[in-house]
Amino acid sequence: MADKLWGGRFHGQAADWVDDFGASIHFDYQLAKEDIEGSIAHATMLAKQGIIGEDEAATIIAGLKEIEAEFEAGQIHFSVKNEDIHLNIESILTEKVGPVAGKLHTARSRNDQVATDFHLWLKHRLPAVKAAITDLQQELVTLAEKNVDTLMPGYTHLQHAQPISYGHYLLAYYEMLQRDFERFEFNEKHTDILPLGAAALAGTTFPIDREFVADKLGFDQVYHNSLDAVSDRDFALEFLSNSAILMAHLSRMAEEMILWTSFEFNYLELSDSFSTGSSIMPQKKNADFAELSRGKTGSVYGHLMRLLTVMKGLPLAYNKDMQEDKAGVFETFDTISAVLKVFTGMLSTMTVKKDKMRASLKGDYSNATELADYLAKKGLPFRQAHAVVGMLVYQGIEEGTALEDMPLSELQKASDLIEEDVYQVLDPVTAVNTRTSLGGTAMENVQKEVESAKKVLAAR
Amino acid sequence: MADKLWGGRFHGQAADWVDDFGASIHFDYQLAKEDIEGSIAHATMLAKQGIIGEDEAATIIAGLKEIEAEFEAGQIHFSVKNEDIHLNIESILTEKVGPVAGKLHTARSRNDQVATDFHLWLKHRLPAVKAAITDLQQELVTLAEKNVDTLMPGYTHLQHAQPISYGHYLLAYYEMLQRDFERFEFNEKHTDILPLGAAALAGTTFPIDREFVADKLGFDQVYHNSLDAVSDRDFALEFLSNSAILMAHLSRMAEEMILWTSFEFNYLELSDSFSTGSSIMPQKKNADFAELSRGKTGSVYGHLMRLLTVMKGLPLAYNKDMQEDKAGVFETFDTISAVLKVFTGMLSTMTVKKDKMRASLKGDYSNATELADYLAKKGLPFRQAHAVVGMLVYQGIEEGTALEDMPLSELQKASDLIEEDVYQVLDPVTAVNTRTSLGGTAMENVQKEVESAKKVLAAR
Amino acid sequence: MADKLWGGRFHGQAADWVDDFGASIHFDYQLAKEDIEGSIAHATMLAKQGIIGEDEAATIIAGLKEIEAEFEAGQIHFSVKNEDIHLNIESILTEKVGPVAGKLHTARSRNDQVATDFHLWLKHRLPAVKAAITDLQQELVTLAEKNVDTLMPGYTHLQHAQPISYGHYLLAYYEMLQRDFERFEFNEKHTDILPLGAAALAGTTFPIDREFVADKLGFDQVYHNSLDAVSDRDFALEFLSNSAILMAHLSRMAEEMILWTSFEFNYLELSDSFSTGSSIMPQKKNADFAELSRGKTGSVYGHLMRLLTVMKGLPLAYNKDMQEDKAGVFETFDTISAVLKVFTGMLSTMTVKKDKMRASLKGDYSNATELADYLAKKGLPFRQAHAVVGMLVYQGIEEGTALEDMPLSELQKASDLIEEDVYQVLDPVTAVNTRTSLGGTAMENVQKEVESAKKVLAAR
Amino acid sequence: MADKLWGGRFHGQAADWVDDFGASIHFDYQLAKEDIEGSIAHATMLAKQGIIGEDEAATIIAGLKEIEAEFEAGQIHFSVKNEDIHLNIESILTEKVGPVAGKLHTARSRNDQVATDFHLWLKHRLPAVKAAITDLQQELVTLAEKNVDTLMPGYTHLQHAQPISYGHYLLAYYEMLQRDFERFEFNEKHTDILPLGAAALAGTTFPIDREFVADKLGFDQVYHNSLDAVSDRDFALEFLSNSAILMAHLSRMAEEMILWTSFEFNYLELSDSFSTGSSIMPQKKNADFAELSRGKTGSVYGHLMRLLTVMKGLPLAYNKDMQEDKAGVFETFDTISAVLKVFTGMLSTMTVKKDKMRASLKGDYSNATELADYLAKKGLPFRQAHAVVGMLVYQGIEEGTALEDMPLSELQKASDLIEEDVYQVLDPVTAVNTRTSLGGTAMENVQKEVESAKKVLAAR
Repeated sequence: MADKLWGGRFHGQAADWVDDFGASIHFDYQLAKEDIEGSIAHATMLAKQGIIGEDEAATIIAGLKEIEAEFEAGQIHFSVKNEDIHLNIESILTEKVGPVAGKLHTARSRNDQVATDFHLWLKHRLPAVKAAITDLQQELVTLAEKNVDTLMPGYTHLQHAQPISYGHYLLAYYEMLQRDFERFEFNEKHTDILPLGAAALAGTTFPIDREFVADKLGFDQVYHNSLDAVSDRDFALEFLSNSAILMAHLSRMAEEMILWTSFEFNYLELSDSFSTGSSIMPQKKNADFAELSRGKTGSVYGHLMRLLTVMKGLPLAYNKDMQEDKAGVFETFDTISAVLKVFTGMLSTMTVKKDKMRASLKGDYSNATELADYLAKKGLPFRQAHAVVGMLVYQGIEEGTALEDMPLSELQKASDLIEEDVYQVLDPVTAVNTRTSLGGTAMENVQKEVESAKKVLAAR
Repeated sequence: MADKLWGGRFHGQAADWVDDFGASIHFDYQLAKEDIEGSIAHATMLAKQGIIGEDEAATIIAGLKEIEAEFEAGQIHFSVKNEDIHLNIESILTEKVGPVAGKLHTARSRNDQVATDFHLWLKHRLPAVKAAITDLQQELVTLAEKNVDTLMPGYTHLQHAQPISYGHYLLAYYEMLQRDFERFEFNEKHTDILPLGAAALAGTTFPIDREFVADKLGFDQVYHNSLDAVSDRDFALEFLSNSAILMAHLSRMAEEMILWTSFEFNYLELSDSFSTGSSIMPQKKNADFAELSRGKTGSVYGHLMRLLTVMKGLPLAYNKDMQEDKAGVFETFDTISAVLKVFTGMLSTMTVKKDKMRASLKGDYSNATELADYLAKKGLPFRQAHAVVGMLVYQGIEEGTALEDMPLSELQKASDLIEEDVYQVLDPVTAVNTRTSLGGTAMENVQKEVESAKKVLAAR
Repeated sequence: MADKLWGGRFHGQAADWVDDFGASIHFDYQLAKEDIEGSIAHATMLAKQGIIGEDEAATIIAGLKEIEAEFEAGQIHFSVKNEDIHLNIESILTEKVGPVAGKLHTARSRNDQVATDFHLWLKHRLPAVKAAITDLQQELVTLAEKNVDTLMPGYTHLQHAQPISYGHYLLAYYEMLQRDFERFEFNEKHTDILPLGAAALAGTTFPIDREFVADKLGFDQVYHNSLDAVSDRDFALEFLSNSAILMAHLSRMAEEMILWTSFEFNYLELSDSFSTGSSIMPQKKNADFAELSRGKTGSVYGHLMRLLTVMKGLPLAYNKDMQEDKAGVFETFDTISAVLKVFTGMLSTMTVKKDKMRASLKGDYSNATELADYLAKKGLPFRQAHAVVGMLVYQGIEEGTALEDMPLSELQKASDLIEEDVYQVLDPVTAVNTRTSLGGTAMENVQKEVESAKKVLAAR
Repeated sequence: MADKLWGGRFHGQAADWVDDFGASIHFDYQLAKEDIEGSIAHATMLAKQGIIGEDEAATIIAGLKEIEAEFEAGQIHFSVKNEDIHLNIESILTEKVGPVAGKLHTARSRNDQVATDFHLWLKHRLPAVKAAITDLQQELVTLAEKNVDTLMPGYTHLQHAQPISYGHYLLAYYEMLQRDFERFEFNEKHTDILPLGAAALAGTTFPIDREFVADKLGFDQVYHNSLDAVSDRDFALEFLSNSAILMAHLSRMAEEMILWTSFEFNYLELSDSFSTGSSIMPQKKNADFAELSRGKTGSVYGHLMRLLTVMKGLPLAYNKDMQEDKAGVFETFDTISAVLKVFTGMLSTMTVKKDKMRASLKGDYSNATELADYLAKKGLPFRQAHAVVGMLVYQGIEEGTALEDMPLSELQKASDLIEEDVYQVLDPVTAVNTRTSLGGTAMENVQKEVESAKKVLAAR
């Protein structure tokens, strides 16, 4: 096992398929740039501290930069024989600069190295996630502003409940995404900690300067316990659970886009660029991208469960199980990035069928609460008002008459508190615009919240 | 369906088992105090705004306080016929104060009411979770301080890796719990938002004052979008994912306690109060509570997955699926509270077998890295040093000789860089105390981190 | 710790809250009858083998029967101090019959006893699950038979795809449930194995007769490895994964019932007995039970994940973690039993709005495939036929004209293969009835499958 | 959108990244052979039924075979523009044979095509899974036979419980794998059903012969409901839940291999071919492959949760969400195949340290149950016997004396039922060999179970 960097005490040889099973280069090649960045900072520090020579550091750093350039040009071939990204790069570096490359590994171990790479990787990507969320929020606010006065039925239990502004509906997702944004922002706190210098698990006897490395790499903090530094995957678990909650939100919006583009609802039409057809049914126009986004919720939930399962019951410090920490995070980053972009794209190109939304309020009894509130305001205890209106609705459905189409005499049979002014109350515009309580759907409220959201986004 | 508060338009009657299936009173009775608290604040506000009379409010509030007192005295019987805690309390209130009770429901709905109760419930309990974490951190720090100079093998891959201070090991868990603490603290942000006033989904036409209610109930913020207010369960998802990560940490400590109390490791002995025997094998002393804690990780992971599944693809606003949000959160709060307390109890009463820990370092080759570092410091590239030592270890295992027991001549055959001073390097005390890098296991470091942790906890 | 049955080597005392944490009597009281049944069989065997006296066995059995009667009469109070159902019953038995009760524990341990109880519990309940599935299948077939000729749009991507028979749709769920039935049937195989006699983990030195006990308790097989007998929870994992798949199916049907009772679809009306109203919106009639069923999918998925997590990485044989195996299985049995019954109830009492279903086919272009197939049969490669029809659909949507309403001349502009007979092809009845391929939606097929299903169910 | 096969009604154009997001060719290229196999069977049937000409079928089939050959030779380049494997192959076929390729799509849709490919894919691989399980079972039996008389402590709660035969321990895993085998065998039942002919969702108007296709492809059954045929993913869910249970088992064995190769247990030594070293600690020999296998449990659990989440609440029939069904199944197949092979490899090459196992029984009180049973057989109720021995164990631990080393006089102080013959009872060989109850650890039993297992495997 002369070709393994850790092979001193070993005499047997693993079969190729075993090496392949154990290797992580299949996915951790994605850490290449972070690995090199971390190594450059480490080498710089080693020289500064006099642990290696300045010229040695210079040689190593030049070699690493060459590798980075070749990697970016797609000229590097990584090998399963070298297991992971760290040993691959070290091996290539050795080819390039000779045995001095071995000095790079002074005062560090793969345990703190991989943790550093992984922290750095996520630290570099969280801003992109936040930006993608911001883009979608921006699109929601733009669309909300255009639809402050677009009325549609608000739903509970997928039944028409009360008329709302479509702009108000859109801002509900703005709010959800705002919390998502804040979660990923909080995620940065526990990502922004440098493990390098923890070495294998216990720290090192070399006089290293971890604060210097942290500064070089842009980390806010350093781990204060070496065992924790190499064992901690909280930042990844936070990322996955934040992503899972984000996908829960987006799957809800997806569900509604699928419903609302159906023949039955017909509230939205997706652009051709964000829908697909059927290879057998020529008439089909499917909300495929919303469906696929909804489906990808499964992948993100699954990756969260995956890492939680991996971490369960692992003794300190590093165990090989933890090699299973990265692939799911990498894939989840790709998934949520793409899904966020898809939603921004769908929203910005779709057609809102305002007339259909408005028409759907006709004869749907979504103004029944207005009538009950009307009666309550005239002094009837709400529970009795509710019962009176319930009976009127029942009768209306039986007879096929909307509340607003019932003659006053008919309404008065149900309660003599009802007067001519009831018809204005039954108008959906009234229903919406009188809901002026903070957070209510009144158009003036929605406009105010649009302004407030624009300020938040502008300040970001 | 005259007995249902929403029964106006209904004429058929559900069978008892159907009512039972749909009811939530089986578990949401736990919201009783929060429900009453929310109702009192609501009634107070309704009167302040002139929506109901001051005397009506007084009657309602007196009735609610009476119910609360009876509930605390265990004198209240809730009925499945009244579905949930809200209708149960309203029904009892009606019995007590008559039809004026109906006015309490003015300008609110069960949708914003249950959300308010649930927020309030968690808001009241997060401080207890943080306190229980703090207690365990405190215990870890106390124990760490007593064991700054207790040496034991540090493990990676469950193999002896390098000698560490047991105090250092304990502080690794202090750090994990610190992040847990911060996560539950962040959790408060999205819990501390008042939904009440969102009504069913769209806000209300009554001139309510939500800020006043928020103030009464101690909420920091109010929801600014009514649809979001009744649909949002992020605070519960955050609680469950935070709990899942916490349990991942505690399951790791549990695993180690189980290992370390085994015949083979024998590092710890649990007190009789925190271990159990076997009904068939008289010699057994099992770390049952650590095992059960580890097992309960499954329950917490499961509840997280449960709520994520519930929320997937739900259209806005409230859907009955969301009734499934609470039982898992309630159970998880009980679980993590108990498990945290169990760990604090186990740690504070167990016996640390310092001699066994120390003895385990003899002949375990955990000082091999020291030798490699020794050679590296004398100028040998680390990779070559590693290979040299690997060969010595192999030879030692074959011959049954520890590194520290090999004669100098033998060691020098492997490398002539080795000199007499090597024996001090091979001493575990040296190994530990020379790891003075920030976060390393050197006793002086550990002592410093203990002090720093004590300050953090004292300031809490 | 004199009051603990395993307390011999113990001298400390656990606090009450610790006992409470460790106890399982909170939920395993549900095993009371199975525990007694197992004990009676065990005592009978012990006497038959001469391990205890016949009179001793008689005393023990009489005592156990008395306990069972009292349990059924609700007269038994179990205590947390006695941890679990086994020690509780043993303790009560000792009170009743004196120290001879202690002989019951000869040649067994709680490890094989709890495994036996749990196997027996599930073995007794799987037939009920199968019967509940059968009931729902029966209801689906009955309803399918009534709706062989009820036409509705078949959906893919929630878009109208092609006309189908509603009976055909219902039979799709019959098929899913058939596989569910077969999975629970297979589940019986690994449930129907007796662990008793494995003792703590290694078997026993007493000359027991396990086959006799198996026979007494109605088990098909006995475990052939004692370690496996006490460590195996496959039967529970199978039950949970079968339940999860069942819930996936039922959540799909739930989703459709929610959609189809919406204002927009309006295909079904649930009976008042299986729907609920709103406490604030008098017009609401919600498919609450379908929603709650869909929501409970989360609970079942969660319990599967819970037990999988518990079992991960547990060394042989019994560990206390495994106490966490039962609560989720108990709850899941209750959940799927109730949900199956709810679906049977909803289906058997709802109104199918055949006219609305039929009307939904008008102008929805779900006959576009017919036209493409028509052209393909006249020799046009299908891909070209698809393109021709796609263009006609586009034009129809633009102009608001259904395919069946386009004049022949217009159609012929698109392809001169189109002739007068096209109009029959465009009729949904034709579309359905010409799909006579095996498994296709033609009414004759559906009727045939109804007959076949009836035979399957009759033979059960 | 002229380049999309379903583009007739579309006029807009998706951006490349959107196409990329929607495409499945990234992973479903793995279905290439099954797709071609299915298409050949379909074409053959179409010709037999006179739906297309014999010469047309011949041309198509020749083209498909050419593609297959090129695919196997690695000469095919699939394009994201063609979305998935089906359209990719159709597009290549069109290039090869011209527009006649379009006829292949007669009487089928991508919905039944992908379901067919996926069924076929799994149908082809289940035998390999079963074979890999059989190999591991074989290895366990071989090793068990060599270790019938190797004694070691049996564990519960990771505490020494009673002496067992190591062969007995190995056969516990044989039994678990036997149930795994049976589950994958059952999995074949619901995999072995042909969906082709269901077309998009409703069947087809073409006079196809599905039984013929089933026969051609080796399927046992055909789906009898077209909606079910295209919507069913039970076979995949079964595969994933079976894999999850399998991994639960293997993670348990992994845990024990990691424990048993530790410095503390030292029962096993893995071969150099199945262990790895450390890049920093030269002495390390890690059970990396066992750890990684244990870690991969997370991936398999996650993929199960993923597909369950995807399927939750999906209306019939096909939805794009279902595209998320395959990647996890493909990866899980690779994972369990590799992990099974790794275990077979580890077991067949490791060294069993029989002496260390045997030595671990010295002074561990694992013979305490023997003494209790000894007293019980002499007439003392077991509970009293347990208490007597518990006291002796306590005393022994205090004094550092094993039970077998206590003088008779000492033992008799605890109970005068104890006589000279007690020392034979306290010998672990006696403890093992007197456990002759069915399934007990007595060597004769273990030998018998080895024979029985060999017969089962030989008959496979």
